[in-house]
Amino acid sequence: MARSALALLNRPSAAAAPHDPDAPAFALVDPAGAHISALDLGITRGEGIFETISVAEGRPLALEPHLRRFASSAAALELPAPDLDAWREAILAVVAELDPSPEAYVKTVLTPGVEGDGRPTGYAYGTQVSGFEEARTTGIRVVLLDRGLRHDAGKTSPWLLAGAKTLSYAVNRAAVREAKRRGADDVIFLSSDGYVLEGPTSTVLVRRGRELLTPGVGLAILDGTTQADLFAFGERRGYSTGFALLTPDELVACDDIWLVSSVRNAAPVRELDGVARAVDAEFTAEMNRFLHTRSE
Amino acid sequence: MARSALALLNRPSAAAAPHDPDAPAFALVDPAGAHISALDLGITRGEGIFETISVAEGRPLALEPHLRRFASSAAALELPAPDLDAWREAILAVVAELDPSPEAYVKTVLTPGVEGDGRPTGYAYGTQVSGFEEARTTGIRVVLLDRGLRHDAGKTSPWLLAGAKTLSYAVNRAAVREAKRRGADDVIFLSSDGYVLEGPTSTVLVRRGRELLTPGVGLAILDGTTQADLFAFGERRGYSTGFALLTPDELVACDDIWLVSSVRNAAPVRELDGVARAVDAEFTAEMNRFLHTRSE
Repeated sequence: MARSALALLNRPSAAAAPHDPDAPAFALVDPAGAHISALDLGITRGEGIFETISVAEGRPLALEPHLRRFASSAAALELPAPDLDAWREAILAVVAELDPSPEAYVKTVLTPGVEGDGRPTGYAYGTQVSGFEEARTTGIRVVLLDRGLRHDAGKTSPWLLAGAKTLSYAVNRAAVREAKRRGADDVIFLSSDGYVLEGPTSTVLVRRGRELLTPGVGLAILDGTTQADLFAFGERRGYSTGFALLTPDELVACDDIWLVSSVRNAAPVRELDGVARAVDAEFTAEMNRFLHTRSE
Repeated sequence: MARSALALLNRPSAAAAPHDPDAPAFALVDPAGAHISALDLGITRGEGIFETISVAEGRPLALEPHLRRFASSAAALELPAPDLDAWREAILAVVAELDPSPEAYVKTVLTPGVEGDGRPTGYAYGTQVSGFEEARTTGIRVVLLDRGLRHDAGKTSPWLLAGAKTLSYAVNRAAVREAKRRGADDVIFLSSDGYVLEGPTSTVLVRRGRELLTPGVGLAILDGTTQADLFAFGERRGYSTGFALLTPDELVACDDIWLVSSVRNAAPVRELDGVARAVDAEFTAEMNRFLHTRSE
């Protein structure tokens, strides 16, 4: 048992050669060591995909939707399809290795491996987390930043990989640094033609009257696994749910805005581009309780 | 002596802590091993920068311009400034380790390292290369693909990192796969507002009458080190050189188009979006001889 654990997959994709034909599906190794070749395309080209799966009281949340999105991201990057049974087994082994704690996450990474080698790299890393309480209750300060892409770039230019969860997150990281420079915590990206897209590591969710809405499927954004669960939450409470193409003015006019993601869960936006907003503490707390106890 | 060599830097940035306070500036290690933590932000977030330096007959080419661009990319990503003396020393040691060969390259990689650890990851990997003869003489087939970004996104939205050579190259790789699906070899990216930008791993260079031109400084593209040398080449032959904002129609109307880069050098475009183009074999051969023998 430990605060963190790492499993290296021997054969992350059934269609590709294993690293060692006699080895088991995965091996638990010391997270403090060196595990990856300096020539791995995951590092030299940011080529690869990931998922981050929340673990509540030792139970991975929304595991199957994460695995499905992992497979869909692999297809977008033309990686050999991940062997989801092997991944599920490795994830559960990593979770079992962690000391009991209220919150943890497991990150899965799949890359093509070293160019020409034919053996993809795959690993699952789990660690305890804490410290999201303030973001979930008091809320976060957000700035709107241009993402450069048109809202429909995912459809017109699939090679821009807008709907795939790739390792190439340098822009997402730089956007968060820009937010901090502006005295904020996080970002909502706008398309170059002026529509609300997503956060660098989160989905935008808004409440408008009796509607819970998120920027539409088909935009240049990721399908949110947490947002999908919060639609179920809303529907049980009589909200209608759906997709909406929102301008910044329409966003500002919404009753509530949250950035939702697997690990931080629902973080209410308490300031948008420097303008304070009221936070519905009770509704947000209900959302976060729902997320913490959701089933797979 | 070997076909490839790898140096891990102990202290890639003078401002950051070394990996081992008692170790020398770098260590030559077996390129076949595992060198990088699975938690390195270079792999988990594609956060980091690189350069690829061509080596001709054992001599690194344009080493200083590459080191300057490396430092400039580091600044764009707010990485601690690379210790260029340590990098130069490591690069030369890697080159000295390689078996004599007409062509090789050294790739340098700098990442923030493992989050919270404070010790950046840096390495220089060198390997022999060959097989570019056909691209340099017969030429390459190219398709035009949307890069999604406006031509001026580098200026208006610096967090998009358009001018930095980051590890987040998943889109560049996906674009080349799209080109191959279309029966071509490589890509010229267009801005979303219809201007010629760059190739996924190269700079566009065109000849129009007595002018040698490249898409302008200030666009959402990288400064090309090879293109800069080819401007010097052109000027010695009486060409005027400069920057041009080109539409696809203006590109097609140019006398010659090349994609130029450190390792493949000048590759003439022999087909653009399925339309054959004449290649000036003699002028291209002169360019490539010039690049192979250029000084630092």
